[in-house]
Amino acid sequence: MQPGGKQDSAQFGRETAADGAFVRQPNRFTGRVTRDSRSAPGEGPDEDGHWPVEAGRYRLVVSLACPWAHRSIIDRELLGLQEAISLAVVDPIRDEKGWRFTLDEGGKDPVLGIGFLSEAYLATDPEFAGRVTVPALVDTITGKVVSNDYPQLSLDLSTEWVDHHAAGAPDLYPQALRAELDPLMADIFTDVNNGVYKAGFATGQEAYEAAYDALFARLDVLEERLADRRYLMGEAITEADVRLFTTLVRFDAVYHNHFKCNRQKLTEFINLWAYARDLYQTHGFGDTVDFDHIKRHYYLTHPKINPTGVVPKGPDPLRWLTPHARG
Amino acid sequence: MQPGGKQDSAQFGRETAADGAFVRQPNRFTGRVTRDSRSAPGEGPDEDGHWPVEAGRYRLVVSLACPWAHRSIIDRELLGLQEAISLAVVDPIRDEKGWRFTLDEGGKDPVLGIGFLSEAYLATDPEFAGRVTVPALVDTITGKVVSNDYPQLSLDLSTEWVDHHAAGAPDLYPQALRAELDPLMADIFTDVNNGVYKAGFATGQEAYEAAYDALFARLDVLEERLADRRYLMGEAITEADVRLFTTLVRFDAVYHNHFKCNRQKLTEFINLWAYARDLYQTHGFGDTVDFDHIKRHYYLTHPKINPTGVVPKGPDPLRWLTPHARG
Repeated sequence: MQPGGKQDSAQFGRETAADGAFVRQPNRFTGRVTRDSRSAPGEGPDEDGHWPVEAGRYRLVVSLACPWAHRSIIDRELLGLQEAISLAVVDPIRDEKGWRFTLDEGGKDPVLGIGFLSEAYLATDPEFAGRVTVPALVDTITGKVVSNDYPQLSLDLSTEWVDHHAAGAPDLYPQALRAELDPLMADIFTDVNNGVYKAGFATGQEAYEAAYDALFARLDVLEERLADRRYLMGEAITEADVRLFTTLVRFDAVYHNHFKCNRQKLTEFINLWAYARDLYQTHGFGDTVDFDHIKRHYYLTHPKINPTGVVPKGPDPLRWLTPHARG
Repeated sequence: MQPGGKQDSAQFGRETAADGAFVRQPNRFTGRVTRDSRSAPGEGPDEDGHWPVEAGRYRLVVSLACPWAHRSIIDRELLGLQEAISLAVVDPIRDEKGWRFTLDEGGKDPVLGIGFLSEAYLATDPEFAGRVTVPALVDTITGKVVSNDYPQLSLDLSTEWVDHHAAGAPDLYPQALRAELDPLMADIFTDVNNGVYKAGFATGQEAYEAAYDALFARLDVLEERLADRRYLMGEAITEADVRLFTTLVRFDAVYHNHFKCNRQKLTEFINLWAYARDLYQTHGFGDTVDFDHIKRHYYLTHPKINPTGVVPKGPDPLRWLTPHARG
């Protein structure tokens, strides 16, 4: 069997409930890179699964198409971790063999030496039979996956890699704000980040409509919240903005059509659209957006939603560069 | 074989060219009802295929979902032909047996006594093996199809049924304007009415993009044309407005998403959107629009485009009732 040959073409099937609802699989690898790891440099994880912080050791495998991976890409830029953690970018089109390193010379990641991300998954857990996902933080010494647990992974970039942050890096996860930030991010995850997937991957009308209603109800709340503050938590960018942005930037190009989230386009929200452009025009956000990867990924990777494989030509991405009049 | 059993689920296949382009089949039945028919009342067509004008004799079979049928529905209302020509409405969902009279008691049209429109097609041409289409004008005496030639059919309502028009009925196809009106309607057909289908039914990227480009180039021309005139030909509604409206009213609900016509929504055109609302709020237009039939038809009849069969919930049709500030 080819590496990753167990991957099916999309999330349909194993992750579909009896009522047609999409139920995302749990994240398999939940190792962490932490300052309090009891392992020495070069060693594996300690008994708590904590790996040592080491610049140059770990490789962040991402798809530029994927909103979950996009979080960590933005954080890495905002925090100035480009030198400390290297980046591997997979082909935006995930075929039956899963995420592939076909953009690299010889079809292999030059550091990890593998052609499919599934090879790292299987090297870590030979029994792994789920869907291979990005982002994945991979140990370049052993080739094993440290984590595909994207929410923790991106928080750890803020809180555990501080010794490697650029001077003046923002605090994206401030201790004093976490009591408000955590539930806000949970709501954004449930209704927005994962909400668009629940709408798009639903195979039943009721499951779809429930996701659609929750999505737009949440966007209405956020629209209101952004009426009198520049960012979700006030005057400074936080992890919540990173997480909301990754869905908003894909909204009109993909989710509105491909995932049937069509009450309105992002451009039809006054505050959310200006807020999203404000972020887009900030270093780390717009410069990490690849609409070509985004569109080709979604429209070519889900034949159960788009059998013809035709990629919609619109809308014009230059609209993201128009003035936003915020801040 | 079931009546209509030869129908496949959509226009894919027989009407797809080698390059993935959609090529619409010719209209099979091109009989006409004309004032100069040499046939007496109750008789069949004369040697030219012209049937006599007779109030109460013919039945117009339509789908409220179908833009080609919608032309004749609007014309019938605008001209006041409701008493002269009766209307039969098929189920919006066309399954493998084609258009069905499942909305009627017992699943049969009460006048024609048939359950499938294909029965009338086969009664007229037992060899017919194409796609059964609406509108179809059917002779209630013989049960045969007079015409499914929708462009001529709607013009004939204006020009041949004049003795049955309501007092004060508009002239939708004025002799003096035809030299300008005919090529205008031809452009609208090629790039807009049929253009959205060419985009949506394309199975190749190039064929899709050619249709998309031609569609939006034409809409840009029409947007400009409508900047300084209320209707396409000036101060009075003509057949060109009827034909453009039937595509515009389906644009955001269907074509923008389902057919990938997503450079922008209709609501993002200044003049076209106001013009379309102006027509919608005119008797004969908005009151003949059934968004439920429209959406269920497209999203449930084309499994090659929408395999899950989930019908998008948006956008809100109440926007059609907002003021337009024209005229």
